[in-house]
This record gives sequence, C-alpha cells and structure tokens, in this order.
Amino acid sequence: MRKTFLFLVLVLVGGTTQAQKEDSVFIKKISDEILLNGKAYENLRYLTKQIGGRLSGSSGMVKAEVWGLKTMQESGADKAWMQECMVPHWVRGGKDEAAAYFLQGSTKVVNVNRIQKQLDVLALGNSMGTGKNSITKEVVLVNSFDELELKKDSVKGKIVFYNYKFNPTFINTFLAYGDANKYRGAGPSRAAKYGAAAVIVRSMSHSTDNYPHTGATRYDSAYEKIPAVAIGLQDADWLSNQLQKGTVSVTMKTNGHFLPDTIGHNIIGELKGTEFPHEIITVGGHLDSWDPAEGAHDDGTGVVQTMEILRAFKALGYKPKRTIHFVLFANEENGGRGGAKYAEEAKAKNEKHIFAMESDEGGFTPRGLSLTGTDQQFQKFLQWRNLIAPYGASEFNSGGGGSDIGPLNKTFGTATGSLSPDTQRYFVIHHSRNDVFENVNKRELDLGAVNMAALIYLIDKYGL
Amino acid sequence: MRKTFLFLVLVLVGGTTQAQKEDSVFIKKISDEILLNGKAYENLRYLTKQIGGRLSGSSGMVKAEVWGLKTMQESGADKAWMQECMVPHWVRGGKDEAAAYFLQGSTKVVNVNRIQKQLDVLALGNSMGTGKNSITKEVVLVNSFDELELKKDSVKGKIVFYNYKFNPTFINTFLAYGDANKYRGAGPSRAAKYGAAAVIVRSMSHSTDNYPHTGATRYDSAYEKIPAVAIGLQDADWLSNQLQKGTVSVTMKTNGHFLPDTIGHNIIGELKGTEFPHEIITVGGHLDSWDPAEGAHDDGTGVVQTMEILRAFKALGYKPKRTIHFVLFANEENGGRGGAKYAEEAKAKNEKHIFAMESDEGGFTPRGLSLTGTDQQFQKFLQWRNLIAPYGASEFNSGGGGSDIGPLNKTFGTATGSLSPDTQRYFVIHHSRNDVFENVNKRELDLGAVNMAALIYLIDKYGL
Repeated sequence: MRKTFLFLVLVLVGGTTQAQKEDSVFIKKISDEILLNGKAYENLRYLTKQIGGRLSGSSGMVKAEVWGLKTMQESGADKAWMQECMVPHWVRGGKDEAAAYFLQGSTKVVNVNRIQKQLDVLALGNSMGTGKNSITKEVVLVNSFDELELKKDSVKGKIVFYNYKFNPTFINTFLAYGDANKYRGAGPSRAAKYGAAAVIVRSMSHSTDNYPHTGATRYDSAYEKIPAVAIGLQDADWLSNQLQKGTVSVTMKTNGHFLPDTIGHNIIGELKGTEFPHEIITVGGHLDSWDPAEGAHDDGTGVVQTMEILRAFKALGYKPKRTIHFVLFANEENGGRGGAKYAEEAKAKNEKHIFAMESDEGGFTPRGLSLTGTDQQFQKFLQWRNLIAPYGASEFNSGGGGSDIGPLNKTFGTATGSLSPDTQRYFVIHHSRNDVFENVNKRELDLGAVNMAALIYLIDKYGL
Repeated sequence: MRKTFLFLVLVLVGGTTQAQKEDSVFIKKISDEILLNGKAYENLRYLTKQIGGRLSGSSGMVKAEVWGLKTMQESGADKAWMQECMVPHWVRGGKDEAAAYFLQGSTKVVNVNRIQKQLDVLALGNSMGTGKNSITKEVVLVNSFDELELKKDSVKGKIVFYNYKFNPTFINTFLAYGDANKYRGAGPSRAAKYGAAAVIVRSMSHSTDNYPHTGATRYDSAYEKIPAVAIGLQDADWLSNQLQKGTVSVTMKTNGHFLPDTIGHNIIGELKGTEFPHEIITVGGHLDSWDPAEGAHDDGTGVVQTMEILRAFKALGYKPKRTIHFVLFANEENGGRGGAKYAEEAKAKNEKHIFAMESDEGGFTPRGLSLTGTDQQFQKFLQWRNLIAPYGASEFNSGGGGSDIGPLNKTFGTATGSLSPDTQRYFVIHHSRNDVFENVNKRELDLGAVNMAALIYLIDKYGL
C-alpha cells in the first residue's frame, strides 16, 4: 500500500513535471514571439497618434471602431465583428475655463481683480455646463463630506471646493483612488443637496504637475445637476491656501451636455475552439477613452495587448481547445454599456463563459495577476504562479476583474481576472493630458501581453 | 521532552510574532515618513537641474561634492566628511561628430557625397579622440566577435562597426546588458589588434529613439588606443542596411582625452551605533555620472535615496544599534576609485563591516532586494521577506552587490546587498540624453528608499 502510494506520487509528480515543462516551453515561445515581433506598440502609436481621444459617441470612437475591426482581422481572428449597442453621448462642448479672484478679508463677492489667477480646469465627464454665460461665486472649502455636513448651511449659492487629498501612504495607488473618487462621483449632488451652485474637485492624483484629471461624475436625480470641474494639485493647494487667508470667488464657464444616445460597438474577434468550442474565454480592454489626451494607458494599452495575444497565438500556430473572444469594449468610461451588452447577448444566446479577463490598469510593467472565482478555481490559478512569475507577474492575488466583465460574472458567475501592472505611475496619467503615447514603454506594454497570454493559454489548456 | 519542545516552539513562535509585529509597525512608520515628508525628489531636482552631469574630475562633480556634504548634514548625520581619493579625469573635449557616405557598389573610399547622413554619436568614456583632424574610413560591419575573427584580415585601416543587438528576450534587461556590453568594453582593443582605425558600437539599449548611449571602454595596453563611438539604434539599423547594399565610409571627429588624475571625494555621513558602534553598515550610491545628461537615474536616485534613509531615521528618532555609514561614492563610472578607497581606509583602520548595500540600478519601482552572503545570512534575509514585500520589494534574490561595495566584500568578506528596481525602462535611459529628472517618478523613487530603509533597519536590529 505504501509502495503503491509512493509510486502514484512519483507518477503524479513526474506527470506534472513533464506537463509543466511543456507549458514552460510554450510560455517562453509566447514571450519570445511578443518581445521579438510584437505589434502592440505600433498599433498603439496608430490608435493614439492617428485617432487620439475617443469618448463614446465621438467621431474619434467611430474611427477607432473601424480601425479596431481591421486590426482584429489582421491580427488573425477566425472571424471578427461589431456588436452594436446604444451608448451615451456626452460632449465637452468647448474649452473649460475658470479664474479665481482673491478678496482679502472681504466677504462680499465682487467682480474686481484683487488677485486673479487662471485655474487649469476640466469639467467632470457627464457634468452639465454653466450654460452660455459664466458663473461667478464665492468658494467654500471642504476637505471631506463630514466637513460639508458641518458647513451645509453656508454653501447655498456658492461653489463647493472638495480638497480631499489622494493618500500617498497607500502603496497600491488604486487604494488611494478608491478612497478619494467618491468626491468626483457623488460630490456634485451632495453639494447640490444644500443648494451649492457648482463644484470644484481636487484631482484624484499624486502628480507633481498641475494637470486636472477628469472622469465621470454621477448626478443624483433628486437634486439639481450643477456644474463641476476638476483642478490640478498645484491649483488646489493655491486655492486652499488663499481660502485660509480670506475670501475667494471663482468665475467658471463649462459647456458639457448630453446629446441623444447613439450607436456604438464592441469589437469582437474570435478564435474557435477545437475541442470545447462552446466554452468561451474572453480577454479585453476598452476602446473608448476620455478626451483630454490620447487614451494611451487608459485603455489603449489594454486594447493593443488584447489583439497582441491573438496575433501571438496565430503566429505560433496555437489552436485553442476552447473558443477565445478578444473584445474591445465600447463604453467603459461613462456608461458601461459595452460590457452590459456583451453579457446580455451572451445570455440571450445561452453561451457558456468560463473565464474573462481585462487589462485596464495601465500598460505598466506587470507585477501580478488577479482572479475572482471559487476557492477551487483560485487554488488552480495559484498552481500556475511559478510558470508565469518569471515574466513579471509574480503576485497572484484574489479579486481580479473589471467593469466591462463584471456583467458576465453577475449573469453567469463567470470567473474574472485582470492583469495587475505596477501602480506607481498610473494616477499621474489617468484621465489627464499626460495620457499620451510617449508615456508608454514598449517593453512594459509587451510584457503585459506576455503574462496575460500565458494565463489564457493555461486556462484554455486545463480549463478553470 | 515532547512537551518541553512544544513549549519552546510556542515561545519562539510567540516571540517572533511579537517582534515581527513591532518590526511591521516600525517599517510602516518609515514608509509613511518617506511617502508623506520625503525630500529625495526635491534633492534630486537640485542635483540634476542645478548641478547636472558630473563626471569624476569635472567642475560638476566638485559642486556635487559640496552639495552632497551639505545635504548629508541637513539630513541629520551625527557627522559628515569628505574622504579624499585620486580619480581619473577623462574629458570629452568637445562635440562628437560623424557622418556616413554611401558608395553604391564601390570599394574605394572617396570623399564624395553620394548619400550623406549625419550620425548621432557619443565617444565612449575613457576613449581617445581622433585628434585635431577628423578621420574618414570605410566601415566593416561585424555582428559579433566571432564575425570579427572571420573578417580579421580585412579590417586594417577601417572602422569596425559592432552591431550586436541588445537581446529583447531576456526579461531582466540587466541580462541583456551583461550579454552585450563586452562590445563596448573590449571592442575597441579587439579591433585595434587587427589594425582597425576606429570603432562604432551599437548602443546597449532597447530604446525606440535614436540617442547614443556612452559608457566606459577599456583599452588593452598591448594595442593602439583607437577612437570609439556609440550610435543609437536607428542609426545602427540604417548603417547595417546600407552595408548590405554596398560600401559606406564614415567621417568622425572625437576629442576625448585624459587630463592628469585629480582629487575627488567620497561623501560620508554617519549615525553612530548605540550598542555595537564598531559594527558598520554601509548604504550608498554614486555621485559621479556620465556627461550626456543629468545622471538622474544613474545614479542621482541612489544618492538621494541614501540620504533619504538617513533623514527618515532621524525624523523618526531612530537610534541605530550599529553604526551606519551613508556614502556617496566618488568614481563609479570610469575607475571605481571611490569604492576602492573606502575599503582601503576601512582596512587601514581595522573596521568591522557587517553589511553594505547599494542602489545603482535606477530609481524605478522596487521589485526586490538581493543579497550576497553566507547560506546562514541568506536564510536570515529570507525570513524578512514578508515584512518588506508589502512595500514592493517582494522578490528576495541572491547575488546582491555593486561595484562600489565590491571592494568591501573582497577585503573583509562583508555581505553585500542591492535594491532591485524594475528593469524595463533602465536601458532606455542609461548613459544617454534620456537620463534626466523628468524621467524619474517621485513615488517610485521614494518607495526605493522605503524598501532599503526597511532592510537596513532589520539588519541593524538583528545583525546579519
């Protein structure tokens, strides 16, 4: 009995070792293919420099869809198609402007230039503009929602300035973002509840520059939809300092508004499975982006990594056992309609989705992979760590996913995963003018694709 | 017996847990202090923008020494001093220039502009210039030393162009550097051995731009010291392509030469140990840098991280058990005289050096810490992994050290360590015009100091 057991262990270990050896060899092939012949960087150059910003509904997004379909075909999809969905169509409507007037000691708001400073502002996405005329109002500083409650009787007709700081003591900067972004999301309506005329939000960033960072706000329909802008950190510190000393009024003009919902598309490429064609694995990024720059890291990198995995699989002659969908989602930034549509159609067609993953945390050097699934799935995932870690993703964490694949998880219970790149540079760039091609490093981008492809390969081969 | 053993285990485990808790709390304090109040970034701004490039012997280096001593004092050293050493004094001597002439099908070198292309070149450090007049010679392409051997009879009086490529399939880019840099170091003399007139070396880089990357070459005194330049990757590819089609001659003018050795200094700051003052721990980076840019990542970041650790320890009121030396080394790039002097004086004074570490792999996001020591020391080091990993350095590897602390290891057998930042961006920057302040991210820089400080703290507390 003991001998039999020992024999079995040896066979299992030996078997595992042989399979792991094969896997290790194939993952090295993927890595070499991408690092030697990768097209992700040149694809990203085209998307960012020839097309640029591409908010849902914009002409940039229409061009990006055409480019995405063509590039998906060129990358080797068995077939590629556009999946139609209605998307919101918010437009900035012109240049956002603001200036501050400091009225030492005075509490009256007057239109006299005592100290004037142009503020560099960006209206929050989905926010309503000031209309044709600018507004000029006194500013009330609050450092938190608690402070807003204390000052609620004194904000009527004024501009509430949320100066909540991005906390530098979190090592993972997404924790600081999660901590701070409620001021962008809920801040305008919480201020409108008390009669505020507009809102200024300190950007969710640890940047050393002064660029404002936009991003979606969410109005509560119970209150007036008041204008709202983000300002950069240097302006926020200046404004905060001035408000310690006296009264400040700000003149602002923003032009944001919604046009009627319009037609957008997810772009889907497929490699058909050879053994289990009805089991679907999804990998994707989102094609839409905010308008201040080129949407390079958010999420151009996820888009080109997705198609790079497809290209590498085809270049290596890899025929997946399961069907793989490579998806460029239509509307992550201000509506989530692309991800919702993808899950909705999957449900209507009664598809079986076993795993979905996203790259939407920037194209930085890969540090880890994350998975949301059952305990059993998570244990299986952990066993692949040693195969993938040599390529950079050495931290295997629970809690992977993303807003475009969340609906799949909700609909089917599909396990979801994500690439976890290093987070230290992301919030310098995110939703600001820094989100340009020049801030992407080719090797970091390529290595993200390598690590994602390795995980997709293992899940395709062994199931999950 | 069994009960006693169990009791002992519980005591040990319990003791470890309590101590680990204290260590965890203190490391979090170090992290918060550096991330909230860190001075490294502003110190680096001064060093790079007000002082700039600082090759040993240059006026920049003299200014940097004065600044280093002052900043070491301001950072809270019990005492700080300059340790004198003689350093080599190589000067570039003017602008390096080169142009290529393509002579389709011809084998004669003539001074006719058939196709002329200006090449962006930088003379290799320590190389001898062409003299007052330029030289114009036919170019012979070799992709490796093996190919040089095959062509050895045809390189006399010509320019040997080493086009060995930086291998992108290594995940850790330092492996690609280790693989390629023999062409910069030994290439000129290997070509001179067969009578070559000069050398062009493809830069040791995976950059997508065309900047040349300099760095030290080492002449073999048995052969003539011929001029040698680096060229960027785009020019290297162009030149290689032209040489497939016909004959190319290059005109080059470089002006490098040595002035007499001069006086340089290591800058040393000290925190005196309270319990074991005769046991010394060293942490450092090198103050000298190549001249094409500002020496930001190489090694301004190591310099300011070193002083940031000192500043944080003082700010937290930490009184080390052992004596800690914070050292800015004088001459890493083209002589190693600073590190040699430091070990030499330590030996003369019969000092006891238990550990030394460097940060000289760029100020990028920390990924790991590395240690060279006995098996026992390495096991002790591994036990600290879980305490430090949350701050980024999760990969604990053997093989830590650096060229400035190598002499300590050689002299005393001192264990040596190094910070291992992510390597993906380093060789875009290294020894090129890209090595500027703007390419350093504040958080990445600060986190490097956090992880180094954590290791220094643990070694100070527990010994090694």
